Amino acid sequence: MIDELQTYKRDLIVAHERIRQDIHNTPVMTSRLINEITGCDIYFKCENFQRMGAFKMRGALNAIHALSSKQQKRGVVTHSSGNFAQALSLAAKAIGIKAYIVMPSNAPKVKIAAVESYGGVVIKCSPTNEARERTAQDIVQTKGATFIHPSNNRDVILGQGTAAKELLEEIDNFDYLFSPVGGGGLIAGTIIAAQSFSKKTKVIGGEPFTVDDAYRSILSGKIEKNETLNTVADGLKTHLGDQNFPIIKEGIERIIRVEEAEIISAMRLIWERMKIIIEPSCAVPLAALIKEKSQFKGMKVGIILSGGNVDLDNLPF
Amino acid sequence: MIDELQTYKRDLIVAHERIRQDIHNTPVMTSRLINEITGCDIYFKCENFQRMGAFKMRGALNAIHALSSKQQKRGVVTHSSGNFAQALSLAAKAIGIKAYIVMPSNAPKVKIAAVESYGGVVIKCSPTNEARERTAQDIVQTKGATFIHPSNNRDVILGQGTAAKELLEEIDNFDYLFSPVGGGGLIAGTIIAAQSFSKKTKVIGGEPFTVDDAYRSILSGKIEKNETLNTVADGLKTHLGDQNFPIIKEGIERIIRVEEAEIISAMRLIWERMKIIIEPSCAVPLAALIKEKSQFKGMKVGIILSGGNVDLDNLPF
Repeated sequence: MIDELQTYKRDLIVAHERIRQDIHNTPVMTSRLINEITGCDIYFKCENFQRMGAFKMRGALNAIHALSSKQQKRGVVTHSSGNFAQALSLAAKAIGIKAYIVMPSNAPKVKIAAVESYGGVVIKCSPTNEARERTAQDIVQTKGATFIHPSNNRDVILGQGTAAKELLEEIDNFDYLFSPVGGGGLIAGTIIAAQSFSKKTKVIGGEPFTVDDAYRSILSGKIEKNETLNTVADGLKTHLGDQNFPIIKEGIERIIRVEEAEIISAMRLIWERMKIIIEPSCAVPLAALIKEKSQFKGMKVGIILSGGNVDLDNLPF
Repeated sequence: MIDELQTYKRDLIVAHERIRQDIHNTPVMTSRLINEITGCDIYFKCENFQRMGAFKMRGALNAIHALSSKQQKRGVVTHSSGNFAQALSLAAKAIGIKAYIVMPSNAPKVKIAAVESYGGVVIKCSPTNEARERTAQDIVQTKGATFIHPSNNRDVILGQGTAAKELLEEIDNFDYLFSPVGGGGLIAGTIIAAQSFSKKTKVIGGEPFTVDDAYRSILSGKIEKNETLNTVADGLKTHLGDQNFPIIKEGIERIIRVEEAEIISAMRLIWERMKIIIEPSCAVPLAALIKEKSQFKGMKVGIILSGGNVDLDNLPF
């Protein structure tokens, strides 16, 4: 059981109430064939159908709602070139405030355009970690904007947890929930939801072998980083943080690591059989389940399909 | 109003009752962005999520159910290398009878494998129209199997009409329903459903310019054929038949023809924004609506998304 579960549970309920009207309660889908392949009874929570195409909308909205109206007026800032950049932009637009998004000068034009299309103000910086942190801090200082970290922020974590909360409200009695592990926001929120609303549901993370920082962090007991970032699952390259690591360390059942080919194969299976578009990061939990299916035979499993933002001109198959 | 509407309506209700337990009542989806682009209020009936990935399952099941048990025992036969071959195979398997599928000897291996995976018995023939019709007739003679045409069969038409019936039960008061026009089974069934269950809903067909046989058939008043079959919408190459043409001729509002590039662009829009996989044929009605959007401003429109069986190794973008 994680520390302060009752406080987290209360705040998760509050988070869900306040973001509910601005998010989709995404559908839960099943696949006869994937159940046959795995021998499990699987329910997919389709966050690829969430607004802006990923669960990140939940955390971004909750973090903005948690600010005072004075703070909101001065805007929010983050550094991200992925889904969180778009999510914070759209969430800020929904509330009617400004979102400053720090992006490296070499970010793909299509990602910059996506952020701008959701109303975000893009601030370019040199493509180094130091530059992006310094640039974000500059905006905090000069504009008075509040910095919202994409995954290592308590309100972001709680927002992400509402996906699992909805899944548990719709389908009960899960043996396991599977989620990908990237920066740790989604899996930490999923752990909070599972422990808050189920007596038996355990949470398992899926992670690519090539960026297995979370797997190693749990082994060593401290936050590890990745040496290489060479994975098709581009949403899972980031490392854990001091806000989500304690929750993950105490609450996770285990992390299953998968090869790149297993990720691509699971992604293709979902595309071909479920007729839905998911991004590579999103296929990692199913790849993990398929890899160790003998251990989950007959189990009832929920899988958070985290997002569907792919570049159709650069498919891995 | 089409002839004998009351008889069709009664039989459509019967069809739906008898296939209901073996099909999915597929979800209806919406897209804020596509509504903004078109200026319409669009509801997509997602038959890409139907069993075996297309609406054809409905007609195949209804046609088999309509047979006597004596006929059923002798099996069914069709000639098709597309979705109907898979649909008849799976429908026959659901009922526990045999389906003989006549396919040209040069049919792609992946299509033959798909039919066999659903339990169909593949009979190969030379790749000519005469050969496939003769081969199918041979099976009728030697096995006593009943020939089921993929689109020009009254029970198939009624089965396909259950998709629009479900849509009209879920969302009311449509100004228009859009459907693709291929062999004519789906659009004829959609017309029957619209006239049976709505006072005001008009039906519009979408058809590629390169295979505009139905458009020309309505102009000339007789069934026209295609000279070329050069379209990305490979499900729409077939021509109308004597069972569905009278319904279409009397009941359709009009057919809108679209260019290949417009089909591909509409397909990509649905993939990118709705995060669902549809086949090219399935994008034709949205392409038609986008093309003439000024005429549908503010209208409530239903679009039958007919199927999601695409070859991921041969995408048109």
